[in-house]
Amino acid sequence: MGHDLVVAVAGATGAVGREMLKILEERSFPAAEVRALASSRSAGQKLPYGGGEITVRELADDSFEDVDLALFSAGGATSKEYAPKAVQSNCVVVDNSSAWRMDPEVPLVVPEVNAQDLKGHKGIIANPNCSTIQMVLVLKPIHDEATIRRVVVSTYQAVSGSGQKAVQELESQVRALFNMQEPECSVYPYQIAFNCLPHIDAFGQNDYTGEEMKMINETVKIMGDDQIRVTATTVRVPVFYGHSESVNVETVRKLKAQEARAILSQFPGVRVLDNPGETIYPLAIHAAGQDETFVGRIREDESIENGLNMWIVADNIRKGAALNTVQIAETLLEMKLL
Amino acid sequence: MGHDLVVAVAGATGAVGREMLKILEERSFPAAEVRALASSRSAGQKLPYGGGEITVRELADDSFEDVDLALFSAGGATSKEYAPKAVQSNCVVVDNSSAWRMDPEVPLVVPEVNAQDLKGHKGIIANPNCSTIQMVLVLKPIHDEATIRRVVVSTYQAVSGSGQKAVQELESQVRALFNMQEPECSVYPYQIAFNCLPHIDAFGQNDYTGEEMKMINETVKIMGDDQIRVTATTVRVPVFYGHSESVNVETVRKLKAQEARAILSQFPGVRVLDNPGETIYPLAIHAAGQDETFVGRIREDESIENGLNMWIVADNIRKGAALNTVQIAETLLEMKLL
Repeated sequence: MGHDLVVAVAGATGAVGREMLKILEERSFPAAEVRALASSRSAGQKLPYGGGEITVRELADDSFEDVDLALFSAGGATSKEYAPKAVQSNCVVVDNSSAWRMDPEVPLVVPEVNAQDLKGHKGIIANPNCSTIQMVLVLKPIHDEATIRRVVVSTYQAVSGSGQKAVQELESQVRALFNMQEPECSVYPYQIAFNCLPHIDAFGQNDYTGEEMKMINETVKIMGDDQIRVTATTVRVPVFYGHSESVNVETVRKLKAQEARAILSQFPGVRVLDNPGETIYPLAIHAAGQDETFVGRIREDESIENGLNMWIVADNIRKGAALNTVQIAETLLEMKLL
Repeated sequence: MGHDLVVAVAGATGAVGREMLKILEERSFPAAEVRALASSRSAGQKLPYGGGEITVRELADDSFEDVDLALFSAGGATSKEYAPKAVQSNCVVVDNSSAWRMDPEVPLVVPEVNAQDLKGHKGIIANPNCSTIQMVLVLKPIHDEATIRRVVVSTYQAVSGSGQKAVQELESQVRALFNMQEPECSVYPYQIAFNCLPHIDAFGQNDYTGEEMKMINETVKIMGDDQIRVTATTVRVPVFYGHSESVNVETVRKLKAQEARAILSQFPGVRVLDNPGETIYPLAIHAAGQDETFVGRIREDESIENGLNMWIVADNIRKGAALNTVQIAETLLEMKLL
């Protein structure tokens, strides 16, 4: 296939969809044609691509008839409905929603971590949750070296993870507060400006949020080891772009901080930024717009025999969503699975 | 003593010093006279107190000659120099700096947790670090019931913890960014607006920050049990008032979430706000200006046999500093130790 590929982006007008188009172009993805699909509301809109523009088409039952690869970022309900239709038309789907992630028939992939899970795919491949992707990239080389037993993670997640409306909500709340007006809340239940919300996605029966359960369940599936135990507290913070995470790991074998730095600096997609003496550590404002996942503040946890604390930061829209989706597609091509 | 007390506030013009004066007044602290002390730069300034004003005096060697109780919030160096001089004048010092906290001769007290440690004090009593105070208030009743073995904490700390200049820095950075100008950094090494800084206080030899080591060491001292192991990652977030904390505890005996809620709701100074179905959990914007420490998101940690996750929020200037200092003084009076 290669340069004959017809590629569609479903949900092309959203924050992640636009970033997918940008990344396909940036990385010169070998497509003969790129199509933009969205709801009827957005159909007819023009989006920049390849120096020109492409016109958004309405997502419909026949949208995938001559499409080879579809990148979906249109929400869970749309993925549930249209991904099987695309597969019936012999189109391979890489889906950014949570709809298919825990389906045992669907590979859940971060290419640097578990590309081999793509083998034998049945047409749908799931892109993991943003906060999970950046964490497993760091966990993987540590697990390979020292075997991770337990992870305790607390997140500091940017509003862009909730979409463009949340970015606007943070901005308008800040402006309102600085003008002595009452901030309006519509995306979030409470003010996000100058506040932290320990609530991402809906609460489940065990009082964990959907986001927390994603980090717990997806980590085990991607790492391919159900001996790894994870607990998570996920928190929205007043940051526009870039998720940060405080990650504590317990390993079977002892890993010194210096060894962890050495191992991590060899791993693809990971960059170690860790020199406290020089005030060097990862920051959301520096990670925004970058492809890599940054890790720093690596230090031995003296409260247990074999433990490490780390601070992991990545651009939630790029590696956390659009970039990883495109990288899955590139890996499918390399592995001749598309 | 009681109503004959002469009380001095050293560092009265700072954010915490002003709050101390406000709280002494609010709680009708039984003082015959309240004096405000500060550096020569601030001497002569007027501060509101008791419906009138008090004039700031310069902090000097003889400032404590006829003073019974001094509340210090003037930085570690000032405390190191003047607290012993005050004690020589038979003045009892409650110090909010970190100068004396780990001195084995100095009680480190959160009254609801370890008031008994005040007995036999030698003139100086230390007020713990803000992020430690709100955590130990929640840990204490859990420890009494189920014996805590390990704590993993990640913090979300407000800029007011760095003083009034940091509050102004966050505000001016936000204004600059919204006006397409470069934000200026002076209190913090990097932009705090719309960013998270995993760096509070100076880095030590083990790559932990001073703030992290305070949480580790002070928790053990206040709880009076060196079997409790703590690891901490402390993070500054773009919030003006109110520290939030994601706290994971491992206990010897199993404690169900519902049992923890019941125990915590009985503990003085703690308020349980925990009803996810009704979107009820603690928030920094709600805790600001309040005396209580709020806890919610209480849930069993399924990654270990006996674990709990919690979200703890308090006003870092009140319970985290000024209020706890005044409460120590009140407890000294009640226990006839002043």
